Amino acid sequence: MSLLTTTLSSIRATSQAAAQAALERQLALTKPPGSLGALEDLGVRLSAVAGACPPPIPARPAVAVFAGDHGVHARGVTPWPQEVTAQMVANMAEGGAAVNALARQVGASVTVVDVGVAGPCGSDGVLDCNVARGTADLSAGPAMTRGEVLAAIEVGISVADDLVDGGADLLVTGDMGIANTTPAAALVAALTGTTAEVVTGRGTGIDDATLALKTQVVAEAADRLRGAEPLDVLAGVGGLEHAALAGFLLAGAARRVPVLVDGLIAVSAALVAAALAPDAADHWVAGHRSAEPGASVGLDHLGLVPLLDMGLRLGEGSGAVLAIPLVQCAARVLDEMATFDAAGVTEK
Amino acid sequence: MSLLTTTLSSIRATSQAAAQAALERQLALTKPPGSLGALEDLGVRLSAVAGACPPPIPARPAVAVFAGDHGVHARGVTPWPQEVTAQMVANMAEGGAAVNALARQVGASVTVVDVGVAGPCGSDGVLDCNVARGTADLSAGPAMTRGEVLAAIEVGISVADDLVDGGADLLVTGDMGIANTTPAAALVAALTGTTAEVVTGRGTGIDDATLALKTQVVAEAADRLRGAEPLDVLAGVGGLEHAALAGFLLAGAARRVPVLVDGLIAVSAALVAAALAPDAADHWVAGHRSAEPGASVGLDHLGLVPLLDMGLRLGEGSGAVLAIPLVQCAARVLDEMATFDAAGVTEK
Repeated sequence: MSLLTTTLSSIRATSQAAAQAALERQLALTKPPGSLGALEDLGVRLSAVAGACPPPIPARPAVAVFAGDHGVHARGVTPWPQEVTAQMVANMAEGGAAVNALARQVGASVTVVDVGVAGPCGSDGVLDCNVARGTADLSAGPAMTRGEVLAAIEVGISVADDLVDGGADLLVTGDMGIANTTPAAALVAALTGTTAEVVTGRGTGIDDATLALKTQVVAEAADRLRGAEPLDVLAGVGGLEHAALAGFLLAGAARRVPVLVDGLIAVSAALVAAALAPDAADHWVAGHRSAEPGASVGLDHLGLVPLLDMGLRLGEGSGAVLAIPLVQCAARVLDEMATFDAAGVTEK
Repeated sequence: MSLLTTTLSSIRATSQAAAQAALERQLALTKPPGSLGALEDLGVRLSAVAGACPPPIPARPAVAVFAGDHGVHARGVTPWPQEVTAQMVANMAEGGAAVNALARQVGASVTVVDVGVAGPCGSDGVLDCNVARGTADLSAGPAMTRGEVLAAIEVGISVADDLVDGGADLLVTGDMGIANTTPAAALVAALTGTTAEVVTGRGTGIDDATLALKTQVVAEAADRLRGAEPLDVLAGVGGLEHAALAGFLLAGAARRVPVLVDGLIAVSAALVAAALAPDAADHWVAGHRSAEPGASVGLDHLGLVPLLDMGLRLGEGSGAVLAIPLVQCAARVLDEMATFDAAGVTEK
């Protein structure tokens, strides 16, 4: 069997029994019922993923940043030059990007993976898993071959497996790829049945004319793939980093390790992964609501409620990394808070 | 001069020059302009408070939980017995409450201060600064004397000063007091000119009949004090922990140390403090949007945008503690991220 097939066959529903135990424990802890809001829901979810209440407190969060380039860049969907992908990958490998600063603050490791960068990244700190030197132009035909898609998905699975084997207990999605909000928006449109106008945003910052062009590109690409099988949609309009992220998300579910989902790129990959394995989505936690409109459409479709809503639209995993302490806190509440009985506190 | 007078006279406007330097630095860092959303605004604010860009990364956050009881409890505004205040104070001193679990996760200290608890707390871990054994019933007359108010404010100032003298570089507000959302709602109503119906919420969870009673109590108390001087409003309808928090917030501003503001209780105290010293508010950061409606009214009045919105309504400082890593991350971005020039990344 292929690594993807094995991974898919390992994914189970999360534990209803552990979720129920967590719900009951929340009521026994010294606080008014429900007064910790979304943090209580998160604790229940972490228990369901772990199959245990209290769930383990993640102590070794690991971010994987998957990087790729995009043939559709040639259409002029972004003002940033394509070489910025490789430059930013090198910047991340040197520790100078936003995701690095944030990860250092919260104690997360960062693994930078070249799954589809067009040129050399010029840094020894990058994990070389290059499947192709960028995708083909999704506006002119399929962005990837079926072979490229499967290879990129398996890069994501392997990276997740290696991180978990090395002790990671919370996986965090990251991405880098100039123009990658265009394939992401097309994935969201095609997989949720939403129009391009609704899901297409300004990405890193584009003017009205570029937004109109980008929306048209997304509309045509998505229309071509509506109703297709998820892997065909991914090959048709996705990117190599989107494919790797889909594998990464599936592997987390297969290993029963929670995965913190970042913004639009990760959400679009999650739509593919959930279409392949519906039980996988219950293993994921949405780190934040990206300012990109397609991210909210995708989160709604997945039934994920984001923890943060701070107007971020950077990618790299930045919004998910910011949410790591919230995940740790949610688990710690279930693990460490006293019960009414134990603390001798009167209930209302 | 009294400690309050000295503190008020030490409060200055935050630094516009440092804020401008931070705005410019945000544009030079390797990310699209504005792509870190509210985290960028937060970094600018921290720079303004510190008078330096980059601002220091808070390494020693300190939570102070001020606890008090309330004469209005006798009116039946909450189903929780009054003795729960002392029981929860003891629970916090033993490390079993939500604020303790959260603070341990994010590396913050917790100081529990009895500023107005009705009975003995039965724990050596509580700082005894008791000014009065609870307030008088605010529905029957002033809740506190002017002397009690000033003494409680100075408890808050002294606690903040001691924490800062001990090395704390980020102050975090916490509170405990059964029935304390009633005085808080009355403070918000009186100080913002908002009706009781808008600002009164269900606190830790009350039924419709209790909510109607609570709203009436808030309305009558607030109507009595509208247009009065801030210290008279505080004495008329506030609590001892609200007064201490006002002092704590003022002292943070006086010491140029940012203060993370928790939910309704802290926000109502911040309204008093900002009325006494308008420049103080720029030194504060709203940790979260509490589910209590009065908190949002107060935040709007103060011009503070909360970092988190997770439906919390626990108090204790829980929502502010959850936001500590965000404050650290905002400072670290300004301190550690590479610039486009330094990283050799092309700009758009």
